[in-house]
Amino acid sequence: MSPEEARERFASARVARLATADADGVPHIVPLVFALDGDTIYSAVDPKPKQTTDLKRLRNVIANPRVALLADHYVDDDWDVIWWARADGSGRVLESSARAVELLCERYAQYRDTAPDGPVLAVDVRRWSGWHG
Amino acid sequence: MSPEEARERFASARVARLATADADGVPHIVPLVFALDGDTIYSAVDPKPKQTTDLKRLRNVIANPRVALLADHYVDDDWDVIWWARADGSGRVLESSARAVELLCERYAQYRDTAPDGPVLAVDVRRWSGWHG
Repeated sequence: MSPEEARERFASARVARLATADADGVPHIVPLVFALDGDTIYSAVDPKPKQTTDLKRLRNVIANPRVALLADHYVDDDWDVIWWARADGSGRVLESSARAVELLCERYAQYRDTAPDGPVLAVDVRRWSGWHG
Repeated sequence: MSPEEARERFASARVARLATADADGVPHIVPLVFALDGDTIYSAVDPKPKQTTDLKRLRNVIANPRVALLADHYVDDDWDVIWWARADGSGRVLESSARAVELLCERYAQYRDTAPDGPVLAVDVRRWSGWHG
C-alpha cells in the first residue's frame, strides 16, 4: 500500500489506537478519536473524568516522543477486505490547541456538546504504511 | 473495571492490537486475531504471504519482551457504550505450537481452511485492565 493510500485510509477511520513506550521501553496502548491536519494527528484527553490511572500516554510521550498509531478494518467472515494503516511519528503534548479542538469538534458530534478542554497530543507523522487483504 | 471483567471483554473480541517496542524503545503496532488460553494470548503469523516488511513484531519481542494488547469497542453515536480492555504482559516467540493452532482454528473459520504453520507469539498476561463509558 502506498503512503498516500495508507494516509487516506487512516484519515477515514473514526477511531485509532496509540502505542507509546516509557523511558524503559515498556509499551502502552490506548484507543482514541482523532483529527488529521496535513501530517499531524491531533487527539485530546476526553472531557469525561478518567476512571483509570491515565495520562500515562502523555507521560510516555514526554519521556519518549516516538509513537505509532494504527487504524484498521476487520471483518470476521471476509479476510480479503481487511486492511490496516499505520502512522509512525513523534508526539508533542500541548497544553491546549484551538486548531485541534476545532478539527475534533468538526469531526465528532460528541465533542460539539462538550469540547475537550484539556491537553492535546499532536503527532507529527514521519511515515505512513499499510496493508490490505 | 475489574481485571476479571477486562479479561472477559478482551476474550470476547475478534481482533486486538499488539504494541511492542524495539530495544531503543520505538513503539510498533499491528492488529491481530488471537485466542486466549487462561492468561496466555496466542497469535500466529498469517499464512498469507506478507506484503510488508513484517515480523518486526517478533524481532521486537525477542529484543524486548514487554508488550501490551488492546481490544476495544467503539460506537460513533454513543460514547456511553464504548469500552476497551488491555492486557500487559511478556511475549515469547515459539517456533510452533499445536495448542495455539488448535485454539486459533476453533475460533476462526479462515484458519480452518489454511491453518497457520509459522511462528506463534505467546503473551503471558501479567495485568488485565479496562475502561467503559
